[in-house]
Amino acid sequence: MNAPAKFDAYEVGYDIPAIPGMDEKDIQTPCLIVDLDAFERNVRKMGDWCKAHGVRHRVHGKMHKSVDVAKAQIELGGAVGVCCQKVSEAEAFVRGGVTDAMVSNQVRDPAKIDRLARLPKLGGRAICCADDVANIADLSAAAVKHGTQIEVLVEIDCGAGRCGVTTTPAVVEIAKAIDAAPGLKFAGIQAYQGAMQHLDSYDERKAKVDIAIAMVKDAVDALKAEGLECDIVGGGGTGSYYFEGDSGVYNELQCGSYAFMDADYGRILDKDGKRIDEGEWENALFILTSVMSHAKADKAICDAGLKAQSVDSGLPVIFGRTDVKYVKCSDEHGVIADPEGVLKVNDKLRLVPGHCDPTCNVHDWYVGVRGGKVETLWPVTARGKAY
Amino acid sequence: MNAPAKFDAYEVGYDIPAIPGMDEKDIQTPCLIVDLDAFERNVRKMGDWCKAHGVRHRVHGKMHKSVDVAKAQIELGGAVGVCCQKVSEAEAFVRGGVTDAMVSNQVRDPAKIDRLARLPKLGGRAICCADDVANIADLSAAAVKHGTQIEVLVEIDCGAGRCGVTTTPAVVEIAKAIDAAPGLKFAGIQAYQGAMQHLDSYDERKAKVDIAIAMVKDAVDALKAEGLECDIVGGGGTGSYYFEGDSGVYNELQCGSYAFMDADYGRILDKDGKRIDEGEWENALFILTSVMSHAKADKAICDAGLKAQSVDSGLPVIFGRTDVKYVKCSDEHGVIADPEGVLKVNDKLRLVPGHCDPTCNVHDWYVGVRGGKVETLWPVTARGKAY
Repeated sequence: MNAPAKFDAYEVGYDIPAIPGMDEKDIQTPCLIVDLDAFERNVRKMGDWCKAHGVRHRVHGKMHKSVDVAKAQIELGGAVGVCCQKVSEAEAFVRGGVTDAMVSNQVRDPAKIDRLARLPKLGGRAICCADDVANIADLSAAAVKHGTQIEVLVEIDCGAGRCGVTTTPAVVEIAKAIDAAPGLKFAGIQAYQGAMQHLDSYDERKAKVDIAIAMVKDAVDALKAEGLECDIVGGGGTGSYYFEGDSGVYNELQCGSYAFMDADYGRILDKDGKRIDEGEWENALFILTSVMSHAKADKAICDAGLKAQSVDSGLPVIFGRTDVKYVKCSDEHGVIADPEGVLKVNDKLRLVPGHCDPTCNVHDWYVGVRGGKVETLWPVTARGKAY
Repeated sequence: MNAPAKFDAYEVGYDIPAIPGMDEKDIQTPCLIVDLDAFERNVRKMGDWCKAHGVRHRVHGKMHKSVDVAKAQIELGGAVGVCCQKVSEAEAFVRGGVTDAMVSNQVRDPAKIDRLARLPKLGGRAICCADDVANIADLSAAAVKHGTQIEVLVEIDCGAGRCGVTTTPAVVEIAKAIDAAPGLKFAGIQAYQGAMQHLDSYDERKAKVDIAIAMVKDAVDALKAEGLECDIVGGGGTGSYYFEGDSGVYNELQCGSYAFMDADYGRILDKDGKRIDEGEWENALFILTSVMSHAKADKAICDAGLKAQSVDSGLPVIFGRTDVKYVKCSDEHGVIADPEGVLKVNDKLRLVPGHCDPTCNVHDWYVGVRGGKVETLWPVTARGKAY
């Protein structure tokens, strides 16, 4: 028999992977762990950068979906609030005390618009994006009905190819409609270039963002000529924040992944050709996994498969190891090539997820660790809040 | 303003996507819906097949993770119980009243072994797999400690390349160790060939399963020669059940996806070269999604992205439509090619998920629909139970 179980689910609850104070080695796997030292360094570093460059940071809460993570970003990193992509996420943040939660997305369904308009009654800010003048009357009617105000940004599609308008006249038309609508306030421009964040080359990313910045500047100038000032010109991500932050056009950044990092972001290169996970940002989020079978000499099977992560952006990478490699992912298993047979059953490994956002969304908890001990458990507050 | 909201989250709760009795068109998206008529036809059809072919059906509960779905499979389809992949899943099934819940996987962590041994105290069966003789003493000690019995199958890797031993002598060695261990009962063989389930060709699948059946038969015969009878010889999936079911070797099938179906399974061919979603099984599970932006004439953006599904086995397919196509998936958005511009904002579409298992795992609810109305809400009981 191995060491006795340190974690008795019948005493402390079935649904938590750890309890504060326990050793990291006794955490139930698979689960997400956050290296609190690395996380806090990332958060402070981005906060310092934004302060030094005179831009606000509205961290992307859709990445981590956690009130506790957002509060750390506000307290340690000086973030002004969060953005998120769904009204249900904003509700979760507001109810948790993160009251400045912008929905950086369109809200079109009548029931969702109704919920958005009621966010101020929960103590929050009601703020969303629009890319269609037909949306404005619906938003206005809901704000009037509830006696609240919805702030509305116009979204520009500056290259991501999703929501957003693509011409300055379209921006101005929607902005004027917002400005004229009862219960609404024109709040500025949302322009996130998501499609280039993961290009490896710094110069290629810069070329794409330069196009975006030019589009946004043209729109901001045209709005100004119409007497419409932008409180917020928002966008930027972990692969581009220095471009938008230094543009003189954007005034709010929306980085998310920098706080945790993932394998896909880790591979992109900075201006000196160095991977951004080798100096710029630290891996702070890991899927902790255990070896659960080693019936073949050169292959270990671990307990983290597709139910513990998303592999849309590639397989996870085993942190700090070059002797073993995660090579295949099925529903509940990961296959690890172990050519030298160095792994043993119940060995634990830290996996850097391929893509942090959808990986966080399948977990209920972040287990915060420091110095080999569990320090805290943070719920993934808005997990599953996709509507 | 569109039609007034039929769904007031402030009255009925923030965290449910629908209420029984409402029209399907008012369901909050994205969410999972189950076409109850199609689901029940699938369940009855598989139940009839198993009865006619004299094999038991232990449905794979790891696919849907739902007590309610499992109960329907038992009541309408004559299933003997469920299998699942994690002790935490088995606990969820047992606590929900599905007491015969087999862990068709290895259990190696001491805390998990302890929980497994206590399942009989929750009213359940404790039953798992082993592929390493070193596991047997740990399982035995936990059963003895709790005064319970753990039934243990030996897992054969018959082609999936994950857990399991690959030789008959290894099977016999572990079986004898189980048989000799206090608190344990040798229960049979687990042999699921997962790697060939999704091969398009019926003949290719058959060739792979024939190899598996031969391996299993050899092991069963060798065990019999040692005086060890197999209560359970389990395996088989939606792409192969007719092979194992007619083998005379397997006595329990473990199909999961047949009940809901998905796009990846739908593409495989039956013995007549026909797709299995064109007659054999019906799509009963859909991600209901809404169009939320149509700022470009030929492109609609829907609200179901990576937080509403897993795309590990390919993108979702829009059910019943050839004029529009889901072409790109990002965190919260799906891009739909709409060359004729037929879609409008707030139009709802049914997506057949690429892969049902990890898609179900990101949702909290199945919304059961029949005749255009919401009939029931089933919780995804074991969602997130990955440990």
